[in-house]
Amino acid sequence: MPLPVPVLPDGVDPAWLPPAAFEAIGRRRTLIRGSGLLVDTVHGEVAEACARFGGSVVRDASPEPCDLVLDVSGTDDGEAFTLKRAEGRTTVTASGRHGLLHGLFHLVRLGEEAFRGERAAHTHRPAVALRVLDHWDNVAVHPVMGQVERGYSGGSLFWRDGRARGDLERVRVYARLLAACGINAVTVNNVNVHATEARLLTERIGDVARIAEAFRPYGIRTHLSVSFAAPILLGGLDTADPLDHGVRRWWERATAEVYAAIPDFGGYLVKADSEGQPGPFAYGRSHADGANLLAAALAPYGGTVRWRAFVYDHRQDWRDRSTDRARAAYDHFVPLDGEFAANAVLQVKHGPMDFQVREPVSPLLGAMPGTRLAVEMQATQEYTGQQRHACWLGPMWSEALRFRPEGTDPVGGLSDGLVAVSNAGADPFWTGHPLAQSNLYTFGRLAWDPGADPLAILDDWIGLTFGPDPAEGVRAVLAGSWRTYEKYTAPLGVGFMVQPGHHYGPSVDGYEYSPWGTYHFADRDGIGVDRSVATGTGYAGQYAKPWAEVYESPASCPDELLLFFHHVPYGHVLHSGKTVIQHIYDTHFEGVEEVEEAREVWGSLGQSVDPERHARVTERFAEQLRCAREWRDQINSYFLRKSGVPDERGRALY
Amino acid sequence: MPLPVPVLPDGVDPAWLPPAAFEAIGRRRTLIRGSGLLVDTVHGEVAEACARFGGSVVRDASPEPCDLVLDVSGTDDGEAFTLKRAEGRTTVTASGRHGLLHGLFHLVRLGEEAFRGERAAHTHRPAVALRVLDHWDNVAVHPVMGQVERGYSGGSLFWRDGRARGDLERVRVYARLLAACGINAVTVNNVNVHATEARLLTERIGDVARIAEAFRPYGIRTHLSVSFAAPILLGGLDTADPLDHGVRRWWERATAEVYAAIPDFGGYLVKADSEGQPGPFAYGRSHADGANLLAAALAPYGGTVRWRAFVYDHRQDWRDRSTDRARAAYDHFVPLDGEFAANAVLQVKHGPMDFQVREPVSPLLGAMPGTRLAVEMQATQEYTGQQRHACWLGPMWSEALRFRPEGTDPVGGLSDGLVAVSNAGADPFWTGHPLAQSNLYTFGRLAWDPGADPLAILDDWIGLTFGPDPAEGVRAVLAGSWRTYEKYTAPLGVGFMVQPGHHYGPSVDGYEYSPWGTYHFADRDGIGVDRSVATGTGYAGQYAKPWAEVYESPASCPDELLLFFHHVPYGHVLHSGKTVIQHIYDTHFEGVEEVEEAREVWGSLGQSVDPERHARVTERFAEQLRCAREWRDQINSYFLRKSGVPDERGRALY
Repeated sequence: MPLPVPVLPDGVDPAWLPPAAFEAIGRRRTLIRGSGLLVDTVHGEVAEACARFGGSVVRDASPEPCDLVLDVSGTDDGEAFTLKRAEGRTTVTASGRHGLLHGLFHLVRLGEEAFRGERAAHTHRPAVALRVLDHWDNVAVHPVMGQVERGYSGGSLFWRDGRARGDLERVRVYARLLAACGINAVTVNNVNVHATEARLLTERIGDVARIAEAFRPYGIRTHLSVSFAAPILLGGLDTADPLDHGVRRWWERATAEVYAAIPDFGGYLVKADSEGQPGPFAYGRSHADGANLLAAALAPYGGTVRWRAFVYDHRQDWRDRSTDRARAAYDHFVPLDGEFAANAVLQVKHGPMDFQVREPVSPLLGAMPGTRLAVEMQATQEYTGQQRHACWLGPMWSEALRFRPEGTDPVGGLSDGLVAVSNAGADPFWTGHPLAQSNLYTFGRLAWDPGADPLAILDDWIGLTFGPDPAEGVRAVLAGSWRTYEKYTAPLGVGFMVQPGHHYGPSVDGYEYSPWGTYHFADRDGIGVDRSVATGTGYAGQYAKPWAEVYESPASCPDELLLFFHHVPYGHVLHSGKTVIQHIYDTHFEGVEEVEEAREVWGSLGQSVDPERHARVTERFAEQLRCAREWRDQINSYFLRKSGVPDERGRALY
Repeated sequence: MPLPVPVLPDGVDPAWLPPAAFEAIGRRRTLIRGSGLLVDTVHGEVAEACARFGGSVVRDASPEPCDLVLDVSGTDDGEAFTLKRAEGRTTVTASGRHGLLHGLFHLVRLGEEAFRGERAAHTHRPAVALRVLDHWDNVAVHPVMGQVERGYSGGSLFWRDGRARGDLERVRVYARLLAACGINAVTVNNVNVHATEARLLTERIGDVARIAEAFRPYGIRTHLSVSFAAPILLGGLDTADPLDHGVRRWWERATAEVYAAIPDFGGYLVKADSEGQPGPFAYGRSHADGANLLAAALAPYGGTVRWRAFVYDHRQDWRDRSTDRARAAYDHFVPLDGEFAANAVLQVKHGPMDFQVREPVSPLLGAMPGTRLAVEMQATQEYTGQQRHACWLGPMWSEALRFRPEGTDPVGGLSDGLVAVSNAGADPFWTGHPLAQSNLYTFGRLAWDPGADPLAILDDWIGLTFGPDPAEGVRAVLAGSWRTYEKYTAPLGVGFMVQPGHHYGPSVDGYEYSPWGTYHFADRDGIGVDRSVATGTGYAGQYAKPWAEVYESPASCPDELLLFFHHVPYGHVLHSGKTVIQHIYDTHFEGVEEVEEAREVWGSLGQSVDPERHARVTERFAEQLRCAREWRDQINSYFLRKSGVPDERGRALY
C-alpha cells in the first residue's frame, strides 16, 4: 500500500523537494517490487508524483509496459542501490529497502537525465554508515540558550511547551527532506542535557517514540543525548561510576525500556566531562570506561553510543601560554585507542578548537586506528554568521574530509560516522536564512560521499530548490561565500575575535583574557599562537608526517593557517607576497566588497526567485553587509592602533 | 499615642539602628510635647527604648523631673530642629514635626554625648530639601535586567509576584533606617518604565498608596517614575504631545487620582528621550515642554517633577571622534535654562558620563542658574564593584558636592535636590555586601549636609552599626576603598573598560568599538580622549573659569582626570613624576595589594563582628581579590602589549 506523502504545512518552504522536482518520475509508468514500510513510502512518493504529472504506478506486476522499475530483492536495511538504463527502461535495484528509497531520491536529482539514452549498471553506496544530524534542541526553553542552543531558525521542530509537538506532520516533511539528501539518523535533543531533557530517557520516552515514528518511514533512526549522571538524576543511585555494578544494571534496564518503546532506536550521544557536563572523571575512570558502559547496554539491540571528544579545560588561565586547548582532544583520547567497545564511536569535531571559519583538521583524526571515529561538523552557523550571513560551508567541510592525515587515506574514508549539528528549526524557511538550506543539504550529500565535489552538490541543491532560471546567480552568491566570510572576520586561521557569549559580530579581544583557551596574543609587534614543537605548545607535533613538518615552520605552513600555528611579526611576508598586516587590511576590504557584490547579484534575481524567499534573503543581506563593515572596521582599526603600520593603499582606518 | 516601632523580620540585619543605639535615650526620663503622626512615631521610638533600658516617657506633662525634652511647637513639615543642653536637661525643639524626628535620630547618633555637660542652642537644618532614593525596581521581573535594574541586593523590597508585597513591615523598617540618615523621599519604581510598571500611575495606584502608607510615619514621601507615553499607553490617546490639550487634561486627571489615593505624594520622575524611552522629541517639543506638562499637573498639589538630564545618543558611530557623549547633557539642556516651571527639577548625574569611578563634575551643574537642579549619585555600585567589592563612595560624592563650578558656591549648595540610585533590596543585609550599607548611610547624611566631612559620617555609621570594638579595623577597610578600586580599574579618569552589558569585571576594549560613546582610543603610542577646545571635542569649554582653563591643558589638568580630557603618549609625565604607563602598572599592583591588606584587616575582626556579617564580608573579599587581580593583569598586559614599555620594576606582566 502506498504511504501518503506528508503534507507541507501552509507557509512552509518546500526546500529541495518542490513538486516540480518529481516531474520526470511523475510523467512515467513505474513498477515497484518489494514489500515493507520503506517500499510503501517509495510507492506513495511515486503515486503522488503520478497523480500530479499524469504517469502511473503499479506494484509487483510485469515490467513490460514500464519506463521505470524500482525493485528491492531483500528485506534487510542495506542502503546501496544499483542504477542502470537499457532498452528504454530505467531500473533501480536494491537488496535493502533503504537502498530503494535512496535510489528514488537519486532519480529525483537526475530528473529527465535518468530517462535518456543508455546507462551502464552502477552501484551507489554510502561511504559512511552513520550520517547523523544532531539537534541541540531543548524540550524546555533554557533561560540563557533559548530552546535551540546555537539555533538561528526559530524554535524546535520537535518540542513545544515542554512536550513533543502534538502535530508531527512537519517532522514527517523534515524526515523526507533529510532522506532526500542522504541523512539516516537524527539526535532529537541537546548534548547539554538539562533536567527536563534528562528524563526523555525514562519517563518521557513515549515522546521520543512518537518522534521516532514520524522519522521511520524515511529510514531515519532516532538517537538521544543522555546525561552521564542519569543513574543519579533519574535512578536515585548515589553514583554514576561506570564500573559500579548497580550503575551497569541501571543502564541495562533503562536501555531495555528504550528499545521496548523504539525497536529501531539508534543509540546514545554523550557529552561527558566537558564544559560542566558530568562524566567518568568524577570516579577516576577513563572516557573509555564511560563509553563502554553505555555501549554494553546498547549492544544487545544493535545500538551505538557516540562519545564526544570535545573535552578540554574551559577554566584555563589566560596568563598561562603553555596550556593549549587545541591539544586537548588528542591528549585525552589517543592514549585510549583500542579500549573502546565495537559499538562505541568517538565523535570528534573536525577542527581542534570549535567550528571556527578556518581551523586545521583535528590531529586526532587518523591517530586512533583502533577506535571507530565520527567527524562532527556544524551546519548551524554559530561562528560563521548565524544564518544572518550567507556562508555556504561545503568547501570547508570538503577540505576537511579530503584531508589525508598521513598522506594516504582521507578523513572521510577513515570515518565511521559523519555528524552535523543541525541548522534547522521551526522557521518557515527551515534554516532562518533560506540560503542556509544549502548547508544542510550539502552536509547530507557529503556524508554519503565525502569525496564528492561540493560545487556539484551545490548545483544539485540550486537546481532542485530554485529551478534553472536563477541558478547562475545563486551559484555566484554562494560558491565563494565561505571564503568571503573568512576574509572579513578573524584572519589567517587565528579564530574567535567574536563577541563573548552569543558569538555574533566582532570583538577582537572578546576572548583574549578569558578562561576559554581561545587567544590570539596580538601585541604591538605581532600576532598568533606559537604551536610549534620547537618553541611553542607542541601541538604541531600531534600530526603525523608530512603535516607535523609542514605546520612546524612558518616557511612551510599554509598562509591560511599561519596564525593558528605561529606568532609572527606584522611585517612577516606570506607566501602570497603580502605582509601579514597588509593581508589583514586587504582581505577585510575585499570581504566587504564581495558581500556588496553578492547582494547586488541577489537583488538582480527578483524576477526568478519566489517573492517571500527573495525578500527574506534581501533582509539578511542588509544585516550581513552592516555586520561585515563592522568586522572590517573593527579588525582594521584594532591592528592599525596596535601595529602602527598604515594601509599601503591609504584607505579609511579609524 | 505612641506608634509601635516596626519589627525587624527574623534574619534581617538591623544595620545602623541596632537596639543598643538607643541606650542613652532609653535609660532616661523623656517628655514629649506635640501632636501628629510623626510625634507619635517619636513617642513609639522612645517608649520602646525605655522598655528595653529602664527609662520612662511622658507626653505633654511638666518637664520637671525629665532628662530630655522633645518639643514640637508648630504643625508644619519643617525639618529643622534646635538642640541644647542646660541645667542637666537636653532639649530638642522644632517648629515642624519632621524636625522632631530628625532631632531624635540626631540624639541617637550622639548617644551618651547628648547628655553630658552644657550645649549651647544649635539649629540643624538640611541644606537640601529634596533628599531622594530612586529605586530602579521593576514590579515584574524583567527578562534581561531582573527585578531590580543594576540591583545587587536580591529582589525588590516593595514588589513581588507582580504586586506590592503583602507584608510591608520590612518597608516600615526600611523607612526608619532612611529617616535615621536624613532621606525624606523614595521613588518606588525604575526610571526605565516597562509595561506593567507604567500602570502604577493609574490602575495600580492602590499598590503605591499601600507602600506610601508604610513610609509615611517616618516622614518619607513617595515618588513614582512615569512613562512620558502614558497618555498613549494607558489613556488610549493617539499622542503624548506635551502641547496637546487632551494630553494636558489626561495628565491633570491622572494626577488628581494619584493625590486622591496618596495625599502627600511627592511627584514624578521621568527619563525621557533617553536610551529608548519615549519623550517630547517625537513631537518636535523641548524637554522644558515635556517637564512643564507634568509640572502643571502636579502644581496644584505641591508635587514636583524630576526630569532626568541623562540624554545622549546611544547609537553613536565609534568611528566618529567628533561626537562626544560627555557634551550631551550640557548641549541639550543649557539652552533651555529659565524655561522650566518652578516645580520642575532637572536631575543631573554628577558626572557627564555614567557613574564611573572617576569623572569630572558635570559642567551642567552651575551652568543653569535659572533652573532648579538635583544631583544624581549612584549608591548601587554598577561600575564600582557591584557590591561584591568593598568600595565606600563617600569621598567621591563629597568631592563632587564640594566642587565649585565657578570657584564660588559648591555644587551641594547650588542644588535643590540630592538623589541616589538605591543599593538596597530584599537581601538580609539590605545591600548584598554588608559594608555597602555605608554608602546608603553616607548618601543620606551628605544629602542633609553636603559640606560634611565624609570620614566623620563613616565613623558615625561604624559606631552605630558595629559598636566601638572593631571600629578602627572597619575604618581601615573602608576609608580608602574607593581610591583602591580606582587604582585597579580604568586608569586616570578614562572610564569604562568593563565587560559589556553587566558591567562587572575588566574588558579593556569591551566598549571601544560600541555605539555607546564610551571610548579610550588607546593605540600603540598613547591613550585618552581629547576633549580640549583647541584640538578636541570642545567639552572642556563647557566649564566656567577657572575649570575650562584647568582642564584645557595637560599641563594643568589634574592627573586623575588626565585621560578623560587628553590623549597623551604613554611616556607623558604626570604631576606625580611618573609616566602614564608606569602609573598604570604601579597603581594596578598597588590596588591589588591594598585589597589584600584590607582583607587581612577584615580577617582580624572575627572576634568583634557578628559571625554572619563577618562571614558574608569574608566571602565578598575573596571575590574582590580574585577580580582585582584579573583587573590588574588584564589592564597591565593590555598596555604592555600595546605600548611595548616594560615595567620599571620588572614585575610579572603577560
